Amino acid sequence: MANKIVIALDVMSGEAGAEAALEGANISLGKNPNLYFKLYGDEVVIGQYLANLPKLKQQSSIHHTDFIVSMTMKPSQALRKGRKVSSMWQAIASVRDGEAGGALSAGNTGALMAMASICLRTLRRIDRTAIAAIWPTLKGRTIVLDMGANLHVSAQNLVEFGFMGAAMARIIFKTKTPKVGILNIGEEEMKGNEDLKEAASVLRDSGMPLDYIGFVEGDGISKGLADVVVTEGFAGNIALKTAEGTARQMGTLLRDAFKSSWLSRLGYLLVAPSLKILRKNLDPNNSNGGVFLGLKGIVIKCHGSSDSLGFAHAIDLTASMIKNDLVNEIRNDLNVYYKDHDVIEDQKATVTKKVPAMNNKEV
Amino acid sequence: MANKIVIALDVMSGEAGAEAALEGANISLGKNPNLYFKLYGDEVVIGQYLANLPKLKQQSSIHHTDFIVSMTMKPSQALRKGRKVSSMWQAIASVRDGEAGGALSAGNTGALMAMASICLRTLRRIDRTAIAAIWPTLKGRTIVLDMGANLHVSAQNLVEFGFMGAAMARIIFKTKTPKVGILNIGEEEMKGNEDLKEAASVLRDSGMPLDYIGFVEGDGISKGLADVVVTEGFAGNIALKTAEGTARQMGTLLRDAFKSSWLSRLGYLLVAPSLKILRKNLDPNNSNGGVFLGLKGIVIKCHGSSDSLGFAHAIDLTASMIKNDLVNEIRNDLNVYYKDHDVIEDQKATVTKKVPAMNNKEV
Repeated sequence: MANKIVIALDVMSGEAGAEAALEGANISLGKNPNLYFKLYGDEVVIGQYLANLPKLKQQSSIHHTDFIVSMTMKPSQALRKGRKVSSMWQAIASVRDGEAGGALSAGNTGALMAMASICLRTLRRIDRTAIAAIWPTLKGRTIVLDMGANLHVSAQNLVEFGFMGAAMARIIFKTKTPKVGILNIGEEEMKGNEDLKEAASVLRDSGMPLDYIGFVEGDGISKGLADVVVTEGFAGNIALKTAEGTARQMGTLLRDAFKSSWLSRLGYLLVAPSLKILRKNLDPNNSNGGVFLGLKGIVIKCHGSSDSLGFAHAIDLTASMIKNDLVNEIRNDLNVYYKDHDVIEDQKATVTKKVPAMNNKEV
Repeated sequence: MANKIVIALDVMSGEAGAEAALEGANISLGKNPNLYFKLYGDEVVIGQYLANLPKLKQQSSIHHTDFIVSMTMKPSQALRKGRKVSSMWQAIASVRDGEAGGALSAGNTGALMAMASICLRTLRRIDRTAIAAIWPTLKGRTIVLDMGANLHVSAQNLVEFGFMGAAMARIIFKTKTPKVGILNIGEEEMKGNEDLKEAASVLRDSGMPLDYIGFVEGDGISKGLADVVVTEGFAGNIALKTAEGTARQMGTLLRDAFKSSWLSRLGYLLVAPSLKILRKNLDPNNSNGGVFLGLKGIVIKCHGSSDSLGFAHAIDLTASMIKNDLVNEIRNDLNVYYKDHDVIEDQKATVTKKVPAMNNKEV
C-alpha cells in the first residue's frame, strides 16, 4: 500500500449507522483514489453494503467487531466494556499500531476521547488534549478549540491549544503564520480572568510561527478575525452549539417566509440559485469534523448524525491531516518551543493532572 | 405625578448620542402617555433636541451634568471621576432617592454595573448581581442570565440567578411558573462541573414558583426550550455575542445572495414582504435591554449603539419592570425561599465576596 492514505473507519457507532459511513467513504474515494479504508464493525452489515459499492470494496478491508459503543454510554463504561473489543477502540488501535494513518468515528465523543487518550497517549509536554472544530465565517473558515474536552484549563493549556491550533491551521489554510486569538468577553487587554491574560502574554511573545492578534469576542469568530480561536471547552462548546442553533433558527424563519404566500413562493424560485452560496456556507457537512489535538496519532470525530456527504467531508479532512503529518507538525513545534522555554516547562510540572494518568516517556 | 411611570434617562452616555435617546423616549411616550422622563446630561444639548419634541418636553425635566462616563473607561476610573457628578450616577441616584422608578443608560456596561451596585446596593441575601438579556427564539423569547457581570459564580449564585430570572419571566411572559434551565455542554445529568449539578439539584427541589427543566445546550436557547436559561457570565456573554455574530453572518450572506443577479433581485422584491417576520425576530432592537437583577432598584442597560427604536424598546421594558415592581417580586421570592432554607443561608454566609463590600442591613 505504498503512497496509500489509510483511514481506520469506525463504521457502526454513529446515529446514522453503517450506510452513511460507507457511502461517505465511497464518495471520498471517487475524488481521491489514493485512499484505503480499514472498516471496523459488524462484518455482515458492512459486507451487505459493500456489495453495492464495488470500488470501495476493492479499496478496503473489513475488521469484524461484536461490540458497538452506544451514544449514551459514559466514557468510563465505554472503556470498561468496549476496550479492545469495540469497533471504536480497534479503529484507534490500528493508528497506534501503524496500520492506519488516522481514525474516524461518528460515535460517542466522550468515549472516543477517553479511548484515544488511553490507546494513543498524549504527546510529550501536552497536559490536555483538545477538540478543534472548523467554523464557517464571513471570510472563510476559522479553527476553534477546545470544543468540550476540558471544562477548566490553565493558562499553559490555552497556550498549548494556540500552538496546536496554529499547526492545524498551517496545514488547512496553507498559511505560514496563522492569526491566533483568544476568546474573551471583550477585546481590551484588561478583560477576562488572569489565565486568559497570562496565556495572551505568552502567545504574544512565544516566537512561534503564529501571529497572535489578541482577544476575540463571540461575534469575532463569524467575522473571521482569526484563523484560530482558543478557549476552554465549556465556552467553546456553548459557542459552537449556540451558533448552530442560531443558524437553524434563521433557516427555519427563512423557509417559513418563503412559504408564506404565493408571491414569496414565486420569489423563492427566482432567488433559489443564488441561495446556494448561503446554503454551502452554513451546511454543517462543510465544516464537519472535530480534530483531536495533542495525541500521538490522528483521530477525527464526525458529527453523530452525519449523512454520507458529512462523512465524506470528515474523511477528506482526515486524509489531509494524515498526508500533511499533523502529529509531527505539532511535535516539532513543541520541541522548538520548549527547548527555548525551560522555565515555563518547570512551572508546568506542578500542574495537577485531572485527565487519566498517562505515561509520557517518549514523544 | 400620580400614576406616572418615572424613568431616569442617562441621555448622553451611549455611542449614538442624545438624539437616539430622546427620540426613543418620544416614541415610547407616544405609545404610553403615562411616562415621565428625568433627563440627565448636558442641558444645552438636550434643550436643543427637545425644542423639536414638544410632547417629550412637556413630560420631562432636564437635570444638567457636566461629566459623561466614556465607553472606554474602566469601572474604577468611572467611579473615581464620575461618582455623584456624571449623568450615569445621577440617573441611578434618582432611583435610590425614590424620584424615579428605574434608570436606563446606553453607556459603559462595567461602569453602569459598578455605579448601580454601589449606589443602589444589592438585595439582602443576594451575593452577585446579574445582567439578564432577552433572546429571540423560535418559540418567542427567552431570558438568559448572566451576560457578563460575573466571570465565576458558585452553585448558590446560579440558584439565585434562577430565582431572579424566574421573577422577571413572570412579569414579561405572564406565566406563573416559568420554565428554568441551566446552560451546559450536554442535557444529561452527569454533564458539567459540580457547581452546575448542585445548582440543578437545588433548583429542582426549591419549591419556588418555577418549573426547573434541567440542563439546556447552546442550541436549546434558540429552540425556546426554556423561559429562563441560567449560566455564569463568561459563557453567557460568549453565547450572546456568538449568536449575534452568526445572525449577522447569515444576514450578510442573504443580502449578497439577493443582490447577486437580476433574477434574484426580482425574486427579492416578491419575497421582501414575507421577510418582515424574519427581520422582526432578529432585529436587535426588539430584544434590546439588559436588565440588572439583584439590586434594590431597577437599572436597564441599552445596547451602546442603539438607535431611537432600540431606545424606545428598552424604555418600554423599563416601564414594564417599574409597573410590575420587579424588585419587590424578587425580594418576596427571596424572603419566602430563605425562610424555608436557613441551612443554605448559613452556608452562604461563608461565601467570599469579590464584589465591592456592601452594607446589606435592610431589604
